[in-house]
Amino acid sequence: MPERFDAVDLIREKRDHGELSTEQIEWLVDAYTRGYVADEQMAAWAMAVLLNGMARREIRDLTFAMIASGERMSFTGLGKPTVDKHSTGGVGDKITLPLVPLVASFGVAVPQLSGRGLGHTGGTLDKLESISGWRASLSNDELFAQLRDVGGAICAAGAGLAPADKKLYALRDITGTVEAIPLIASSIMSKKIAEGTGALVLDVKFGSGAFMRDVEKARELARTMVELGSDAGVATSALLTDMNAPLGRAIGNANEVRESVEVLAGGGPADVVELTLALAREMLRLAGKPDADVEEALRSGRAMDSWRSLIQAQGGDPDAPLPHARETHTVTAPRSGVVARLDALAFGVAAWRLGAGRARQQDPVLHAAGIDLHAKLGDRVEKGDPLFTLSTDDPMRFERALEALERAWEIADAAPQRGALVLERIG
Amino acid sequence: MPERFDAVDLIREKRDHGELSTEQIEWLVDAYTRGYVADEQMAAWAMAVLLNGMARREIRDLTFAMIASGERMSFTGLGKPTVDKHSTGGVGDKITLPLVPLVASFGVAVPQLSGRGLGHTGGTLDKLESISGWRASLSNDELFAQLRDVGGAICAAGAGLAPADKKLYALRDITGTVEAIPLIASSIMSKKIAEGTGALVLDVKFGSGAFMRDVEKARELARTMVELGSDAGVATSALLTDMNAPLGRAIGNANEVRESVEVLAGGGPADVVELTLALAREMLRLAGKPDADVEEALRSGRAMDSWRSLIQAQGGDPDAPLPHARETHTVTAPRSGVVARLDALAFGVAAWRLGAGRARQQDPVLHAAGIDLHAKLGDRVEKGDPLFTLSTDDPMRFERALEALERAWEIADAAPQRGALVLERIG
Repeated sequence: MPERFDAVDLIREKRDHGELSTEQIEWLVDAYTRGYVADEQMAAWAMAVLLNGMARREIRDLTFAMIASGERMSFTGLGKPTVDKHSTGGVGDKITLPLVPLVASFGVAVPQLSGRGLGHTGGTLDKLESISGWRASLSNDELFAQLRDVGGAICAAGAGLAPADKKLYALRDITGTVEAIPLIASSIMSKKIAEGTGALVLDVKFGSGAFMRDVEKARELARTMVELGSDAGVATSALLTDMNAPLGRAIGNANEVRESVEVLAGGGPADVVELTLALAREMLRLAGKPDADVEEALRSGRAMDSWRSLIQAQGGDPDAPLPHARETHTVTAPRSGVVARLDALAFGVAAWRLGAGRARQQDPVLHAAGIDLHAKLGDRVEKGDPLFTLSTDDPMRFERALEALERAWEIADAAPQRGALVLERIG
Repeated sequence: MPERFDAVDLIREKRDHGELSTEQIEWLVDAYTRGYVADEQMAAWAMAVLLNGMARREIRDLTFAMIASGERMSFTGLGKPTVDKHSTGGVGDKITLPLVPLVASFGVAVPQLSGRGLGHTGGTLDKLESISGWRASLSNDELFAQLRDVGGAICAAGAGLAPADKKLYALRDITGTVEAIPLIASSIMSKKIAEGTGALVLDVKFGSGAFMRDVEKARELARTMVELGSDAGVATSALLTDMNAPLGRAIGNANEVRESVEVLAGGGPADVVELTLALAREMLRLAGKPDADVEEALRSGRAMDSWRSLIQAQGGDPDAPLPHARETHTVTAPRSGVVARLDALAFGVAAWRLGAGRARQQDPVLHAAGIDLHAKLGDRVEKGDPLFTLSTDDPMRFERALEALERAWEIADAAPQRGALVLERIG
């Protein structure tokens, strides 16, 4: 059967600032998935999209075409509301860990299909794998049963969801075309919509450690994704949140689990607690429970019980000790003053160089590697006080990690100007 | 040995309107030729170049890097000046055929390395292969000997010249990135400079049947190429010439050879004669023979002798009858008046559909297929007069060829406004 379109015509149309029809976009995604449209053609098209943009209708068509490339899950049989959360990725962003059991403790199903880390932002699955016995992989049946019985599940997305997106994302990664808002939005939303959640809250980050440094771009991305969700009948909202400094005190894997458990126990760093509560309230609002008392769930231990059930259901031992690194290196304050800057990107890169992250998809991570901050932004320190501690099993890694941190922090006389952690809600 | 650069960084630099350094461009071309930089990465880079442009220095670096990817020929041992010509391609453009022997008849060597046609513009080698026995392929030694003994040679470029350009051109062809002036200029000039000619005249066409429809773009391309030639020490100039209507009366292969022989015999259509003489004068000026009497060379038969020697040297029989098509179809004038429009692109596409051209590089061409115009732009016709005749061996092809010609011509009451055939000289 002859092909309906010629890939070169479609590339030229986008190159020349035109719009592709719904039929053309459906064909392009399908033909690319089948291998009829070549990687080099899709790369040229993606660069044209990055430089010339896409209309709203084209982004919707692209998202729906990527959903149609694979299976679509449904949790309507659960008999309870489902709500999920997606973060665009940050440094020290362990919010998923306390958030999923907290929300699930209100009788809501949270099917959190997560990814692994790549580059300076960590991955939720890598963090949880610090827990002895815990496994990321659930079959669709296991996932359904866990959502029914436990409420929350955090697991790897199956290969069946939006395979076109998987193929396109790998291509974008090596062709300098990751940073196109239409492609980011359709990539995230195609997976979340195919996953079958009834509601979705997006944590869209801006600032040095975020994918979108610029708040305006982050807002555009958030709006685009909220519209896509609404087009697909998924109740969607977004919070724009600050990622200029690391979230919490722990950056790594095992140490981030430790910090998450502190939050579930009613403690933990103020910023992690604040963001966890803000996202939980938003998720519960969309799930039809606007009056849920999330602080009470932490105080009463209900959220902690929910966490223990989730970890156990996936084979993990919530009481097993978390791994510690063999080597540590602590940096102390060279003068007295106030911590005026902690650059999220630099700390993310340093933790990655210590072994907490991976350079290539197939690399393993060191679960005990990472950084612990002893002082947070705005804290008073005296000369000689510990500022942060680097941990790794391989002391050869300290040098390059410290290099990344050379101009990453500052001690000044006055406290820094700081904006709100949650800047605004969209949707 | 680790690679000097990361392809993704170089793509991003061009995507973000930056300039690549000489070292980066040299690496990119070399790494792409070696297969280290992938096709999809080069395609994304080419699209970024098309949309964001390249600085003059970058274009020069790219051209020189493509030359360095292969062998570089030299004809200094010939002991006579060398001059070549390149046309950006048009409809009915058989000028190379009378031009090369005409210029060679003045004791100048003309190493014309040509290509085959693709799409609606014909290829010089395809045309000459209408001649019984003629062969396009010459070894470097055969080429050298023929330039020494005969003066002119028209042959296929060897695979050794600018292999990086060959690979990049094939990629551009399928990724919608052909139309980038920096890439067109560096592609043409890398091959011509590597070929080793001492001087070069460019026939840069504008108008409906040309690669560059817009005269401003054609001028920009011409200037870029003239500067590249001069950077490489090749005396280079360009003529900007009109390609809104087909050149001459014949569009095809064998019929274009027939028309070229008419020109060499002192006849032929006025526009073909005018352009042949203009290009010959320019080539001879650059070869140090500004006073050569090119009209006398046609009148005296010296150019025809040079043609016969060239054809015979490459195995052809200049007296062999040229093939005729089995089927013809003539379109007549529906009213009396003046031919006011003959659209070059439409006639090129029609001839291609009759079999004169090819859709894919490996397809054969029908040497006898094509179109003969009985009336040229501005000619007076009476109702019922023949306007043009389509020829092919396969009568099934008439329908789609006639479709291409539906709005391609016009008979009006008054003669059309026409610009000069040769608009200006650059360089």
